[in-house]
Amino acid sequence: MGKILSVNLGSSTLKWRLFEMPEERQIASGLVDFFDNSKAKITVKYGDQQRERTFDKKLSLKDAIMILMDELKRLKLVEHLHEIVGIGHRVVAGGEVFKASTVITETVLKQIDDLGIFAPLHNHVEVGGIELFRQLMPWTTQVAVFDSAFHQTMSEENYLYGIPYEYYQKYGARKYGAHGTSVRYVSKRTTKLLNKPLSDLRLIVMHLGAGSSITAVKNGRSVDTSMGFSPLDGLIMNTRSGQIDASLVTYLMQKLNLKDPEEIIDILNNQSGLLGISGLSDDQRELKKLAETHPRAQLALNMYANRVIKFVGSYLALMNGVDALVFTGGVGENSFEMRAQIMASFGYVGATIDLAKNKVMGKEIDISTSDAKIKTLIVPTNEELMIARDVYTRL
Amino acid sequence: MGKILSVNLGSSTLKWRLFEMPEERQIASGLVDFFDNSKAKITVKYGDQQRERTFDKKLSLKDAIMILMDELKRLKLVEHLHEIVGIGHRVVAGGEVFKASTVITETVLKQIDDLGIFAPLHNHVEVGGIELFRQLMPWTTQVAVFDSAFHQTMSEENYLYGIPYEYYQKYGARKYGAHGTSVRYVSKRTTKLLNKPLSDLRLIVMHLGAGSSITAVKNGRSVDTSMGFSPLDGLIMNTRSGQIDASLVTYLMQKLNLKDPEEIIDILNNQSGLLGISGLSDDQRELKKLAETHPRAQLALNMYANRVIKFVGSYLALMNGVDALVFTGGVGENSFEMRAQIMASFGYVGATIDLAKNKVMGKEIDISTSDAKIKTLIVPTNEELMIARDVYTRL
Repeated sequence: MGKILSVNLGSSTLKWRLFEMPEERQIASGLVDFFDNSKAKITVKYGDQQRERTFDKKLSLKDAIMILMDELKRLKLVEHLHEIVGIGHRVVAGGEVFKASTVITETVLKQIDDLGIFAPLHNHVEVGGIELFRQLMPWTTQVAVFDSAFHQTMSEENYLYGIPYEYYQKYGARKYGAHGTSVRYVSKRTTKLLNKPLSDLRLIVMHLGAGSSITAVKNGRSVDTSMGFSPLDGLIMNTRSGQIDASLVTYLMQKLNLKDPEEIIDILNNQSGLLGISGLSDDQRELKKLAETHPRAQLALNMYANRVIKFVGSYLALMNGVDALVFTGGVGENSFEMRAQIMASFGYVGATIDLAKNKVMGKEIDISTSDAKIKTLIVPTNEELMIARDVYTRL
Repeated sequence: MGKILSVNLGSSTLKWRLFEMPEERQIASGLVDFFDNSKAKITVKYGDQQRERTFDKKLSLKDAIMILMDELKRLKLVEHLHEIVGIGHRVVAGGEVFKASTVITETVLKQIDDLGIFAPLHNHVEVGGIELFRQLMPWTTQVAVFDSAFHQTMSEENYLYGIPYEYYQKYGARKYGAHGTSVRYVSKRTTKLLNKPLSDLRLIVMHLGAGSSITAVKNGRSVDTSMGFSPLDGLIMNTRSGQIDASLVTYLMQKLNLKDPEEIIDILNNQSGLLGISGLSDDQRELKKLAETHPRAQLALNMYANRVIKFVGSYLALMNGVDALVFTGGVGENSFEMRAQIMASFGYVGATIDLAKNKVMGKEIDISTSDAKIKTLIVPTNEELMIARDVYTRL
């Protein structure tokens, strides 16, 4: 049928994967890292090989894309660029406009740009990237795949905050959520492990990574999710605070003598979470190593687990019980210590894990004890493949 | 032994109750209402009688106390004011300084005043009131009873936020909680209904009223509570937002063009919650009446229940199951509709209620079904009696 490229453009990196569809065979993957805009590195992985090209000068996004395309040809990963029939772009904020992945038109691009009010650091950058790909590969179908779209099924009692209703109507002040593409992929995979259709399943998907969120999924639809108006809300993350008392925002502004409200939001996004609590690192593996000698490293990990436990508990109640708890994301897939710490709290609903089975990394597996009433699963996520699938169905 | 007065001084009211101790017999109760400081009303209730005196001019707190004391004598509720041997004062913020009720000295008064940084609208007013009572009735033992003290047993993983640790060390930025006196009273009462000592019980106490909070209680100690650094956090309340994404604080400041951060906190405290969502009323009884014809009245009630359900669920997980769920506070004691709406979500842990038994108001009762695995109780609170007990044990 053809090749489809999944693109995830951030503020300083472009991550990509190339798939042969509909076979879902990954041809290659890689990263363009622009660092601080003074140098760059283009990495291409294929089979068991890896190629790198480094640049000791600023590299424009346009140049990077052109070099990357040349590399794909040079390494014979594509014969001709026209084989790439579709490109899927991860977009952070879809607001209430986009409830599903959408083929990009001029109108759609304008709408994504306008939604930048909800993700100032993301949407505008993404629009710039999409425009370049349209210019350089005008023959491809380009599709926007929104992190928020999956959560558009939430009911208003879950997506609204306890603030004046007009702020929702006038300013879009509501919960949007994120990680939707990951949760959608993972939810589908659970049907294989549980041998039941999505329409019969109530799931709690824990996407635990640098950014973390938990989603309640019922009949394949998002019921509620821990990230909120922005990705700052919910769980404690690597450098993000997660939920705090709103009063603390203004209290800390006053104590820290900050005049610009954006400064405190920057602190809560970039100097908080595991890093802020521990004062040592934002990396769970690092914190685990330091924990024996640094009590605050252990404290940060304990607080991380504590918030996951409370969110999972809240969604157990919201759905009046579930069929399975599902771990995904870098931490969820790989940290058996964190999984074990979290799961120690769910004996009361019969969600018990086999600690021997749990000692795996990055494997799709049921780790429940044989008598568990609620299954516990690990499902490695693959947002890029989900993006490619969405493009494929829209060709 | 003697008479003890419980005093709860707010910004525009003084609520009081007079007890004969240790019999715990309530002699009288009442309210001084200063309204907008242009008039005042002094109410005294005793037996089945009620006396009121109104004043069409500003009444100072000192004058109000003196008039009240005269009324107590005139109505023969006390023979002589010296019979009042102790006065207990409700104090909102005890910070980390006060872990229990404390006999008031000059030092203590100064400490309470300093803790006003955590409750600017409360502590200073309370200090003023205590000083007047000390001046007018210098023979009494005066005791400060802190709303926050009961929650000082929380572990740091529950009381800390995911923010830089130094903000806790330098500025006291942590969770303090409130309603502690109520939760302490209610927890003790459950031992009668469950016929077990507190040391054997894990409870979730839902104090649902104009201000609402939920507390996880294990072995008689607070494990976690929904109110946070301030009473704004946690559940949706009559006019308080409860938990919101911290990003919304600055986003709304910008959209509403607010220069002073305190303005948005004022909106979140006084124009949000049930009132803000419904746009109609902050009163659940009123909203219930309006619900059939006004969808947003029903929405406000649904959102209120939704947040209670999620917090109870989170504490079920935090304690890995519980023995009982306990309703108290104006709404918790009296609204069987709200109790039924909340309890519809807890079948998954076997916490089921008998809908016929549930149809009571203000009664101490077990409303569980006979086969319930987790008991559901209603326990009318009595913070004033708890305050009197604390004074009595410190005489």
